[in-house]
Amino acid sequence: MIYDDLCAGPHVEKTSELDENSFKLDRIAGAYWRGDEKKKMLTRIYGVAFENREELDAYVKQQEEAKKRDHRILGAKLNLFTVSPLVGSGLPMLKPNGMIIRKEIEDYIWSLHKNHGYQRVWTPHIAKIDLYEASGHAAKFGNELFRVKGGHGEDFCMKPMNCPHHMQIFADNQWSYRDMPIRYFEPATVYRDEKPGQLSGLTRVRAITQDDGHLFLRVAQIKQEVGIIVSIIKEFYTTLGMVDDYWVSLSVSDPATPEKYLGTRQIWETAESSLEEAAKQFELPYKRIEGEAAFYGPKLDFMFKDAIGRQWQLATIQLDFNLPERFDLSYINEAGEKERPVVIHRAISGSLERFMGVMIEHFAGVFPLWLAPRQVIVVPVGEKFNDYAEKVLKSLKDADIRAEIDLSTDGLNKKVRNAEQSRINYILVVGEKEETEKSVAVRNYKTKEQTEVTLQEFIDNSQQEIQ
Amino acid sequence: MIYDDLCAGPHVEKTSELDENSFKLDRIAGAYWRGDEKKKMLTRIYGVAFENREELDAYVKQQEEAKKRDHRILGAKLNLFTVSPLVGSGLPMLKPNGMIIRKEIEDYIWSLHKNHGYQRVWTPHIAKIDLYEASGHAAKFGNELFRVKGGHGEDFCMKPMNCPHHMQIFADNQWSYRDMPIRYFEPATVYRDEKPGQLSGLTRVRAITQDDGHLFLRVAQIKQEVGIIVSIIKEFYTTLGMVDDYWVSLSVSDPATPEKYLGTRQIWETAESSLEEAAKQFELPYKRIEGEAAFYGPKLDFMFKDAIGRQWQLATIQLDFNLPERFDLSYINEAGEKERPVVIHRAISGSLERFMGVMIEHFAGVFPLWLAPRQVIVVPVGEKFNDYAEKVLKSLKDADIRAEIDLSTDGLNKKVRNAEQSRINYILVVGEKEETEKSVAVRNYKTKEQTEVTLQEFIDNSQQEIQ
Repeated sequence: MIYDDLCAGPHVEKTSELDENSFKLDRIAGAYWRGDEKKKMLTRIYGVAFENREELDAYVKQQEEAKKRDHRILGAKLNLFTVSPLVGSGLPMLKPNGMIIRKEIEDYIWSLHKNHGYQRVWTPHIAKIDLYEASGHAAKFGNELFRVKGGHGEDFCMKPMNCPHHMQIFADNQWSYRDMPIRYFEPATVYRDEKPGQLSGLTRVRAITQDDGHLFLRVAQIKQEVGIIVSIIKEFYTTLGMVDDYWVSLSVSDPATPEKYLGTRQIWETAESSLEEAAKQFELPYKRIEGEAAFYGPKLDFMFKDAIGRQWQLATIQLDFNLPERFDLSYINEAGEKERPVVIHRAISGSLERFMGVMIEHFAGVFPLWLAPRQVIVVPVGEKFNDYAEKVLKSLKDADIRAEIDLSTDGLNKKVRNAEQSRINYILVVGEKEETEKSVAVRNYKTKEQTEVTLQEFIDNSQQEIQ
Repeated sequence: MIYDDLCAGPHVEKTSELDENSFKLDRIAGAYWRGDEKKKMLTRIYGVAFENREELDAYVKQQEEAKKRDHRILGAKLNLFTVSPLVGSGLPMLKPNGMIIRKEIEDYIWSLHKNHGYQRVWTPHIAKIDLYEASGHAAKFGNELFRVKGGHGEDFCMKPMNCPHHMQIFADNQWSYRDMPIRYFEPATVYRDEKPGQLSGLTRVRAITQDDGHLFLRVAQIKQEVGIIVSIIKEFYTTLGMVDDYWVSLSVSDPATPEKYLGTRQIWETAESSLEEAAKQFELPYKRIEGEAAFYGPKLDFMFKDAIGRQWQLATIQLDFNLPERFDLSYINEAGEKERPVVIHRAISGSLERFMGVMIEHFAGVFPLWLAPRQVIVVPVGEKFNDYAEKVLKSLKDADIRAEIDLSTDGLNKKVRNAEQSRINYILVVGEKEETEKSVAVRNYKTKEQTEVTLQEFIDNSQQEIQ
């Protein structure tokens, strides 16, 4: 809640409720009276209050840490992304370093899916408005839809979701129960016309690339498929070091108001117990929250904490009884009759843009080796050793390590400082000793350790670390 | 020219000019007088005429072959792509089999670039109209631009080209001559509002994914960089078996009308001779065509023939002196002064959609193993051998071969027939002999050969073939 504007948030009734040990004036800002720029400018004083001193201290520390890690500042400094006024706000462009991170995340997510029967599909970024009228998104998204005017009497929309497109692909074949589940995967960019004032860096954008996937399955298959998705989520976030303190919201229906939900009570009970059984089987730290389900189905939302304790809702698994109905989807069951599949929407990272923003701050720009855009730099101590440095560079590149070289005329100290400012994981200093021994002097940016190993050892260690 | 409507094409003056040996009535169709559906319907008779009998025969044969290979029919039959009326015409969606082909092509193209200093970037599919006013595309594309209306007083466009976005990324850093060339790569989808009546399959679409790339370089670097691109193009089309009979159009300026072109005569001469020298060095079968250059620079267009002799303009290398000027791009030269870079636009496949359409027809749906969405199917001769078949399947999958299994109750002949209709490259029949000998009976769809090899041999051979 602490990120909300306090004016809209909880209020203390009297200042006497404030305890000087857990209260702090934070900052000031200019503000026009009632937001009207024609009126006089006043000074707004921001303060924060907590239950006790420890909570205040933790908050202050978190804020200081957050400031150091701000992904917008690191994004510019490390050449990860840029926003151009000609392109527009909320439409960040990924520079080569940023694209390396994104591609590693995307490829890793896909590698976790491909042996579980998922198949990649590709769909365009627009569709006729008819598609979203059929799906209900036109009514639901309203002004957030980017409308596209065709020149031939056709009205299009930029897609706000991928599901309707994936339903069209599913509907193109007549499936049998033997084919189920069908699992589509597409990391695809959707567009939403968010308010310009709310846009920021990579976390509040108008172009949102979901690592999206849709499963079409039978009710009896829910538990098994949810189990697979849960195992993928756990593996992914374990790799990123974020599973120490997370929790899962099992959002279910409120049985007292069945009229709020689509589908029979029996299907809901099966669906909710399938989700809960999967949660138990995988020992998820879940809370069952009644009345929090969407009208179209129950869901599991995963809340992970980053390195400085901030909570982010990232992965999600949502059951959907609504869209299969709206698109009249079916498969042929054992009795030769048409039966309606259930749909699961799932995302592991949530959106690649927001997830990248979170990762930049989580790692404070010092990425684990597999994610790091700049893994290694070779620094010769003098011009005499440029040849050996080039050989080292080539060996690293041949081993698929992202390596570069500093052949500038700068002094050694300056070269090392430059490399450290760019947060390159390993600096390999090479001179006479290294050339003779076919070795490298390694400086580890993260641990600040310095070691001397053979080039081959360094390559082997790095490849293992990347794995 | 033979694909043009004859009414607009060349005409014979008198029917006596026609030679019965090289003339053929082709087909008839209904047509309203002057295209007005309120008028009476007439019958239009189509005929084709050639210089001699051989040319006519070749044409007729090509047409018959083209019909058998129609990518729209094969696309539906092999589950490669689909077009939905709710999504809109010219907006095909790739089904899992089609996406395998597209991803293999895209990954292969990227693999040819990544060791030549190219870096991937990512840019959104829209931008403010301001970007295209600055680039000149707003004026040039006019009605073909999809206009996007934001809800907050902002006017956007779906991008018709990627270059302006890439220029914004380049412009985000101050480069030195030591950094040049900068090479960006992005397979990205652009959108153009083509007339609905002209849309067809994958070859005439509104969503066009270019395997796009832009280089920012010094004039003296043109030859070297063009050489790298030419070598990539040659390697790519050699792999696809299309380099037997291709030619290259070297489109240069007309020196008689220098006012038609942007940039000094000296830069044009350097640029044109760089292109020509690269063409000579790589022994390209090129024709120098004067006056065919774009106003922004000279180019090399590559014309390849498919398996039935139809010519397609696919790869392109274009120099550009215009956009760097419009976006005021610069790098710092040896003298510490700002200097304008030249830009190269390049595409290897042209567009992934059109290229896929061409490939489906070129290979008549029987793809080389690395491109084939369905590489191998295991067919047990009876239920007794299902277990061994499953083991074979697992070994194939572990070896990254796209394999499936037919465990249906169909008879062997039917299973083989089904697999052949799906154009699966290899059918592995397994029964008692195979189980005992840990072997597989291989039917090669393309050659119709049948061989008996050990499972390991088959895996080794397939992996080699894929390489």
